[in-house]
Amino acid sequence: MTAQNLKWNEIHNGIWRAKIGNEQPISLLKAAEVKPDTEALDNLSGVTFPLDKTKISAEVINGKTYLRFPLQKEEELYGLGLNFKTHNQRGRILNLHVDHYGNGDSGRTHAPVPFYVSTDGYGVLIDAANYLTVYAGTGVRVDADEKPVLRDRNSDPKWEAQPYSDAVEILVPTDGTEVYVFGGKSMLEVVQRYNLFSGGGYLPPKWGLGFTQRVPTLFSANDILKEVADFESHDFPLDFIGVEPGWQTMSYPCTFEWEETRFPDPQGFVSTLLDKGIRSNLWINPYVSPVGSLYSKVKPLSGSHTVWNGIVPDLMLEETRNLLKEHFFENHLKIGVSGYKIDEVDGFDQWLWPDIATFPSGTSAEEMRQVYGLLVQNMTSKWFREMNQRTYGLVRASNAGASSFPYVIYNDYYSHKDFITALINSSFIGVLWTPEVRASKSAEEWLRRMQTVCFSPMAMLNAWADGTKPWSFPEVEAQVRDVAQLRMRLLPYMYTAFAQYHFEGIPPFRAMQLLEGFSFRSKKIEGKLDGTDNPYAGHKTKEVRYQYMMGDAILVAPMFIGETSREVVLPKGKWYDFYTGTFVGEEEIITIEPGLDNIPLFVKNGSIIPMTETRNRAPRTDEKMDLTIRHYGDIEGQFTLYDDDGVSFDFEKGQFSQVEIKVKKDKSGQFKGHILKPEKGKPYGYNKKVVWEYMTQN
Amino acid sequence: MTAQNLKWNEIHNGIWRAKIGNEQPISLLKAAEVKPDTEALDNLSGVTFPLDKTKISAEVINGKTYLRFPLQKEEELYGLGLNFKTHNQRGRILNLHVDHYGNGDSGRTHAPVPFYVSTDGYGVLIDAANYLTVYAGTGVRVDADEKPVLRDRNSDPKWEAQPYSDAVEILVPTDGTEVYVFGGKSMLEVVQRYNLFSGGGYLPPKWGLGFTQRVPTLFSANDILKEVADFESHDFPLDFIGVEPGWQTMSYPCTFEWEETRFPDPQGFVSTLLDKGIRSNLWINPYVSPVGSLYSKVKPLSGSHTVWNGIVPDLMLEETRNLLKEHFFENHLKIGVSGYKIDEVDGFDQWLWPDIATFPSGTSAEEMRQVYGLLVQNMTSKWFREMNQRTYGLVRASNAGASSFPYVIYNDYYSHKDFITALINSSFIGVLWTPEVRASKSAEEWLRRMQTVCFSPMAMLNAWADGTKPWSFPEVEAQVRDVAQLRMRLLPYMYTAFAQYHFEGIPPFRAMQLLEGFSFRSKKIEGKLDGTDNPYAGHKTKEVRYQYMMGDAILVAPMFIGETSREVVLPKGKWYDFYTGTFVGEEEIITIEPGLDNIPLFVKNGSIIPMTETRNRAPRTDEKMDLTIRHYGDIEGQFTLYDDDGVSFDFEKGQFSQVEIKVKKDKSGQFKGHILKPEKGKPYGYNKKVVWEYMTQN
Repeated sequence: MTAQNLKWNEIHNGIWRAKIGNEQPISLLKAAEVKPDTEALDNLSGVTFPLDKTKISAEVINGKTYLRFPLQKEEELYGLGLNFKTHNQRGRILNLHVDHYGNGDSGRTHAPVPFYVSTDGYGVLIDAANYLTVYAGTGVRVDADEKPVLRDRNSDPKWEAQPYSDAVEILVPTDGTEVYVFGGKSMLEVVQRYNLFSGGGYLPPKWGLGFTQRVPTLFSANDILKEVADFESHDFPLDFIGVEPGWQTMSYPCTFEWEETRFPDPQGFVSTLLDKGIRSNLWINPYVSPVGSLYSKVKPLSGSHTVWNGIVPDLMLEETRNLLKEHFFENHLKIGVSGYKIDEVDGFDQWLWPDIATFPSGTSAEEMRQVYGLLVQNMTSKWFREMNQRTYGLVRASNAGASSFPYVIYNDYYSHKDFITALINSSFIGVLWTPEVRASKSAEEWLRRMQTVCFSPMAMLNAWADGTKPWSFPEVEAQVRDVAQLRMRLLPYMYTAFAQYHFEGIPPFRAMQLLEGFSFRSKKIEGKLDGTDNPYAGHKTKEVRYQYMMGDAILVAPMFIGETSREVVLPKGKWYDFYTGTFVGEEEIITIEPGLDNIPLFVKNGSIIPMTETRNRAPRTDEKMDLTIRHYGDIEGQFTLYDDDGVSFDFEKGQFSQVEIKVKKDKSGQFKGHILKPEKGKPYGYNKKVVWEYMTQN
Repeated sequence: MTAQNLKWNEIHNGIWRAKIGNEQPISLLKAAEVKPDTEALDNLSGVTFPLDKTKISAEVINGKTYLRFPLQKEEELYGLGLNFKTHNQRGRILNLHVDHYGNGDSGRTHAPVPFYVSTDGYGVLIDAANYLTVYAGTGVRVDADEKPVLRDRNSDPKWEAQPYSDAVEILVPTDGTEVYVFGGKSMLEVVQRYNLFSGGGYLPPKWGLGFTQRVPTLFSANDILKEVADFESHDFPLDFIGVEPGWQTMSYPCTFEWEETRFPDPQGFVSTLLDKGIRSNLWINPYVSPVGSLYSKVKPLSGSHTVWNGIVPDLMLEETRNLLKEHFFENHLKIGVSGYKIDEVDGFDQWLWPDIATFPSGTSAEEMRQVYGLLVQNMTSKWFREMNQRTYGLVRASNAGASSFPYVIYNDYYSHKDFITALINSSFIGVLWTPEVRASKSAEEWLRRMQTVCFSPMAMLNAWADGTKPWSFPEVEAQVRDVAQLRMRLLPYMYTAFAQYHFEGIPPFRAMQLLEGFSFRSKKIEGKLDGTDNPYAGHKTKEVRYQYMMGDAILVAPMFIGETSREVVLPKGKWYDFYTGTFVGEEEIITIEPGLDNIPLFVKNGSIIPMTETRNRAPRTDEKMDLTIRHYGDIEGQFTLYDDDGVSFDFEKGQFSQVEIKVKKDKSGQFKGHILKPEKGKPYGYNKKVVWEYMTQN
């Protein structure tokens, strides 16, 4: 088959699809069963096809699909999986492959999403459930349109190990695939389109935004109740408890059945927690132990290979999913379990099913590896949706089309800085990521990690192996409590940010590149020849790193162990210190020395930040919170506060409120806040009395 | 297609082949054009098929071939590519893929040979020119014959992250392949079969076993002549000079044409060197520059993508090979160039042709990647063979079937210890490896590295980037000279070891596991749970490392920087210190403190080691060397000394000598050496006068 003229079909406003070669029985979007939010997509601006169609090529050769997309000179490419060390992927090669993260941005990662978004304002998604190789501006064709300069390494110091490349090339190891192009007037709008196409971002229940503690593996019901009491006595936020493997009669492989010496009365245990306003989240991995009641039923519907002696349910089969549903409803959902942590659906190769495994559905092991995270997310989220109950859990593998799933990705890796890079990159690819805290070598590291996890989609301490508590380092207990409670105070703001994720596709935590007016680019630093360490004098790239936005207003610039100062790149407009309201700079790079107590936060001029009282739990459905509304900067501002019942899916049927908050200057030039009445929609869970804080002294 | 009964056809004595699915147009052995040494194979013992045929399975599913071979409980597996950190591959997963070595034994390496040899005395070769995934006793099938013990991680401290696996499984991403099984009464005999099947190991010219210096990139003819003079004045061995990229009018990409300001008279330059007994070896990589005369001719016969702006000749096409031959003969071979260093035919992905490239021969980029090293070796070695002139060069990529090629593998990586591991592993897979020296941080490191490179297939200092000389650290100049001259003195012994490689398939440098009576096994060390660094409590493996045999008699136990003592595992039989003849131990682990001056060498009881006088060059064809014959230990010994003209292929037509050396006890119990006359065959390049040294005082 020779190169073909692709037929680009605009399937939604600003989203085009082309089909190449043979349709594949499985794809990422099929596994995720995406349900595009057509209405929200229609609300976005209209755009024209963003690429030169004549420069896109697709060819099927010997059962593989060869794809090429053009690149312009200054373009940068973001996305292409949950990378931990790099943002801009141009010039890199990714072998997209669901796996644990092994300390190099190779494409093997928890969410190797084959989607990239360009600084030129478009995105490309390859909807293939295979190990894709992406040359993101790396390969150079003999007949390239824009050829690199020919240089002699003998004599020309400008010789480069990686000459300029004018294309993204993607090898899909199947005889056909589907490709999507997303337009947008900005990178953010492209990402919005991608998220809305995937059904819109997930709106967690309010309790999901509270603090969660995962307890040691063998904790019993009583141990957990004592843990909850300890949180109370330490005056520490806690909304849900992660119950680790020991709740089961066997783990690795799992029975998904309660172990009765540690948990003699599961229903009573879950109810007791719920009465205290604490949800329970159960750890599982999906590999079924021969000793449980599920085994014999699922065995004929499982893969050829075991994982830790457990069988691997073929989740492509409805019959398998039904068997699991029955077992999980009976044992967990019916007694009030709020969600799951779904472990080890990513890798490592050493213990996951090998690529040589087979499955009764005919899905290859490779495809199963790429979609298993999507399949478990899709299956389990349907269970909770059927109960009209929002869940919020953890999963270790994901892929394209996952924006609407109620799961946050985490892993075993533990580089604090790289965790932040992952958090930032998650915003390009429609997934959520938590830089979970487990243990630390010092109080300083502990505090720094706790500060960042509180400014992430899930504020979690995972004590499964170490038995740590938020107060494990007494010398910083107060500061740890402060930041956890600050997160709780920001609930109105954060919940609205997640509502934006749902309704508009705007990621709640997002890269600086997704901010309008952010024009800093990554810089190439020339390489220096070193016969041993850099024999090709390869260059390095300096990027803006370790800073991100939470919602529209707050720039988070975390500190890391051993650092007393750092640079912060401030985008266009004036920026203010979150804690003091002081002006800090305007479209410039500042150096800050923030001290240990607080995580550096900066607020955009004119921002309004709704907060609530200091509290340790998300509100119950019928509970009203107080509002404190902050204003920053020297210009007027506006904020649309979102609210709903916080737990059900009724908001999807219009059961939510949106309240306009405005801060305007009065005749004397003083700022004055207004809440427009009446509230638009309901429920609205705030008391009428509002405290206004004008943070900046002008 | 369902599982099939494989038809095993004994194609040579002790070598069976089975064909599965469709024959592929390209394979490793096809690319290498192996010519089995049938006669030598027939001289090996007869063996029966070494595996339970009913436990071997092969199946083609959706265009991929699924292979399985059984494993017994205690088996260890060696080979599966040039690994740098591990020997026993059981329990590992290898994605065999020609590449630079990136600091992890993932299967991506310079010679990812899909051949393994088992401690149970058999070998398996998959003859596929594709990226293979090998689960070397890793995957566990639901229906495994030998199931691992089911354990509960909650309660059983013996729970293992990697349960027992009873099979090797290999995924071949094509719809058919050929598989070979090699029998043998020992691991060594299996390796011999593999090497003889590949045509027998390569016998280098004698000068190839001398010292080689690769000069800085931009060295001119005059600089090189001065370098040679410096070697003379420092009384340092030198047999060939490596001329680095600057000899060409352009490099990266290359013209393969002499640059006339640095090399105004190439023929005169090469001849002047030859007159001094020094050969010249030219650095190249095969990517053709647009500015050379070769470009326009080769362009239509090249791949779709460039490497450093150079085109990639499609070496699968005879026409391409002929064009290169003409150009290389004209510019290099005709004027007396002795060989090549063929760089960058392995990786990195960032600058090699991408997997999405296409080639006019129809060979896929993946296949081309797997065989390019074989193709360049095969092509160039034919050129020299046509001139009846042995060459000895360097190549950075190889694969199965390469034993008979005149090339040694090297790389950019620079871990001294891992270099030794690679040297050892090279003996399982029919390739040669040099732990080249480039630079060091201290005199100690310099000496330690020089000691080991002198006990390797190619004693090379690669000064391309650093301009180092053997005497760069004056404080150890004497010791460096000592070890280089010791290598020269051992030429009769080493040359015989290489003759064994050629005639019997016995690797000249070999792993301890290939020694009869070596019964030490790798040990599993239980893992300790660490929530961050080892969350699955994965085990580690302790192996016998950093010691190897050179020839039949000498055990080499290198020292590394910062180490003053080390353990040496002595196999069965008595062992003696090479330098003093003193008894050191017998089937035990000894700890030595050898000091800095010498590399620790131990000699097997009864060994005879023929040496020559201290000299700095290999002999000219008409030159006779003196013999000093050493005997070690307390028993009689025997040695067959091999010799030939040292430069041509006439030895293949029987033009060689084999002389029996015996040391026997006379009536008084004193050892006495004998050389059996007349010599069998000719040429025989030694003077009649022999000095006998009975090293051990009994």
